[in-house]
Amino acid sequence: MSGVAVLAHSGGPTPVINASLLGVVQASRRLGRPEKLWAARFGIEGILREEFVDLLGQPQETLDRVAHSPSSAIGSSRREVQDADLGQVLSVFRKHDVRYFYYTGGNGSMGTANQIDGAARASGYELHVVGIPKTIDNDIVQTHHTPGYGSAARFFAEAARDIGADNEALPGQVEFLEVLGRNAGWLVAATSLARRDPDDPPHLIYFPEVPLPFEKLVGDIDRVYTRLGRCMVAVCEGQLDEAGNPFGADVRQGSRGALAMNLGHRLAMMVSAKLRLKTRAEKPGLLGRSSAAFISDTDWEESRMCGEAAVEAADRVESGKMVALCRRPSPKYEIDTQLVPLSSVALTERLFPAEWRNGDAGMPEYRAYAEPLTGPIPGVARLQRKEKT
Amino acid sequence: MSGVAVLAHSGGPTPVINASLLGVVQASRRLGRPEKLWAARFGIEGILREEFVDLLGQPQETLDRVAHSPSSAIGSSRREVQDADLGQVLSVFRKHDVRYFYYTGGNGSMGTANQIDGAARASGYELHVVGIPKTIDNDIVQTHHTPGYGSAARFFAEAARDIGADNEALPGQVEFLEVLGRNAGWLVAATSLARRDPDDPPHLIYFPEVPLPFEKLVGDIDRVYTRLGRCMVAVCEGQLDEAGNPFGADVRQGSRGALAMNLGHRLAMMVSAKLRLKTRAEKPGLLGRSSAAFISDTDWEESRMCGEAAVEAADRVESGKMVALCRRPSPKYEIDTQLVPLSSVALTERLFPAEWRNGDAGMPEYRAYAEPLTGPIPGVARLQRKEKT
Repeated sequence: MSGVAVLAHSGGPTPVINASLLGVVQASRRLGRPEKLWAARFGIEGILREEFVDLLGQPQETLDRVAHSPSSAIGSSRREVQDADLGQVLSVFRKHDVRYFYYTGGNGSMGTANQIDGAARASGYELHVVGIPKTIDNDIVQTHHTPGYGSAARFFAEAARDIGADNEALPGQVEFLEVLGRNAGWLVAATSLARRDPDDPPHLIYFPEVPLPFEKLVGDIDRVYTRLGRCMVAVCEGQLDEAGNPFGADVRQGSRGALAMNLGHRLAMMVSAKLRLKTRAEKPGLLGRSSAAFISDTDWEESRMCGEAAVEAADRVESGKMVALCRRPSPKYEIDTQLVPLSSVALTERLFPAEWRNGDAGMPEYRAYAEPLTGPIPGVARLQRKEKT
Repeated sequence: MSGVAVLAHSGGPTPVINASLLGVVQASRRLGRPEKLWAARFGIEGILREEFVDLLGQPQETLDRVAHSPSSAIGSSRREVQDADLGQVLSVFRKHDVRYFYYTGGNGSMGTANQIDGAARASGYELHVVGIPKTIDNDIVQTHHTPGYGSAARFFAEAARDIGADNEALPGQVEFLEVLGRNAGWLVAATSLARRDPDDPPHLIYFPEVPLPFEKLVGDIDRVYTRLGRCMVAVCEGQLDEAGNPFGADVRQGSRGALAMNLGHRLAMMVSAKLRLKTRAEKPGLLGRSSAAFISDTDWEESRMCGEAAVEAADRVESGKMVALCRRPSPKYEIDTQLVPLSSVALTERLFPAEWRNGDAGMPEYRAYAEPLTGPIPGVARLQRKEKT
């Protein structure tokens, strides 16, 4: 194994993406090859600009601190990779004798990795491309879950519990929590994880996979509020109404289509006008993918493992593969890494399973799936209702 | 000391308000008097409705769990107390022989406590009223700081660091963090606590005590963005423009005046239109006062101490006082409780000191003041900029 290895990050950082960087460094040091491991600064843009940072020479203390810090320590990019870019990437790789490429990202980035692998093969340039999965959205196929999801799920589970406790202490209000996740309901589902009793918040959870007529939302809230005198609603940033519109929210064109920028607030204003109730909305937004305080130990370790597995795979001269997480068929939670073809992952999206969307029943299948990833989420603590004597 | 003691919460809960409840129970149990300690459900409304919960009979395990949970376990209220209410409160107190009243709240609530004390005195009813300070806003006079502030400050310090790290990894964007605090800049100041280097985020911090002309905001952002290719702005929910308006944000009438509901988002939209830059805004909102993960140990213990001190003061037949925190004049951080007249606290507001608003210099006076309250806030971890070899 000679030549240079390059690691790059793509898309939105997660709280544990730097743990996968640590795994890449650890495996490279252990194998002792190749002799050079570089990180591209700001993802694909760093490759195009030939802006690299040495990773093997980093002090261990620095690596350890970075590995426990959220966001990407090497920078990332949302740049759409065009055909012209592919040739330029290969040209840079040839110039520096880059023979190993670890690309950390979501399903779109796995598509890019697959294109780079294909372009290298087509031009007869020996290059080993291995994808490292990363997305808080948990929407990559062929893997039990994605590194990043467990920590972000823990964030939203605790956020729903804590904001819900506030709403319970100061009733008379409808509270919206806007949750990340784009088109997939994996993160909005996580707001259910601290629920223990049927009336625990959030009282209403909407999945972006299902269009939400405004009249249904209003009716649902009215029923909960009439019964409890308060209501907490978890809604995904990508939620659309029955006409396919984001309820009049301001939208921005991003790398993956239009993104509503203030959906929770818009819904709060609309519901307030309709039901004449006090409403408000919280939007933790990027905190959900960057908050150090909610890193799940399991998520961190699995992300590190994926980095290690990518290097080991490249060392076995694999290419065109993504590292995936595979749960052993045992009651105890045990995870192995395996390799799946990039082509089977690229540009597909795994939505939240329809059969798990049984919010009223407490979503037991989802809970069994998610709890090992987040670690324990304690329920809210309440006093015993002892009447005065 | 005979009769009944009643504890009530008022206003927005904090992450440590339940620790003060624990302190009240601990001191009452230790003193062994009075024999009855009740909590009013939902603050002053529970008193008016005669809805009380027994506190002395709660299992220790329940109390311990509750004391480490955010939000108010007994419920709170934002109801404005009218003169007619005062008579009704006294009438309920007489009916149940309530002789001790611990009222946990901010400066407005201390005004209510003072009125109740005055009304009892005027009618010759022996009642011992002691205020327990509580507000994340840190805007109560006569106390070094308020229980609740340290934890909320820690939340916003880490939020600014973590969102700032995300903004650094994916540059090309202006990022707004909307911070709680109403008219006082104490919490927006806390976003500076993880800064170590001059270019660490947030790059711009605005204090609600100072009107902000939109043109100044735009000029400030333009300068930072031109230099760094990104910019992070911390802005308080109560920020006003030079005409005294909240930048066209939607406002809601609350118990303490108008409150902007989407200020960060409004600013993001306005700055994007003006500078043609990609912008976004996060609004953790109520998470900042309810997030269990950011409870500061010091804050928790001081809140518990204030609860204890209130009971001890009432037992010494004090009334019309609030428990205050007083820092000893030693380099080491040591805090005592003392009593101050409710009349000296009521309805006044402590703003962030003008002489501490030296953001460019790293606000050393503020940092020395705040760090003992939040506990250590580690800076962001970065790789060494080792060029590839």
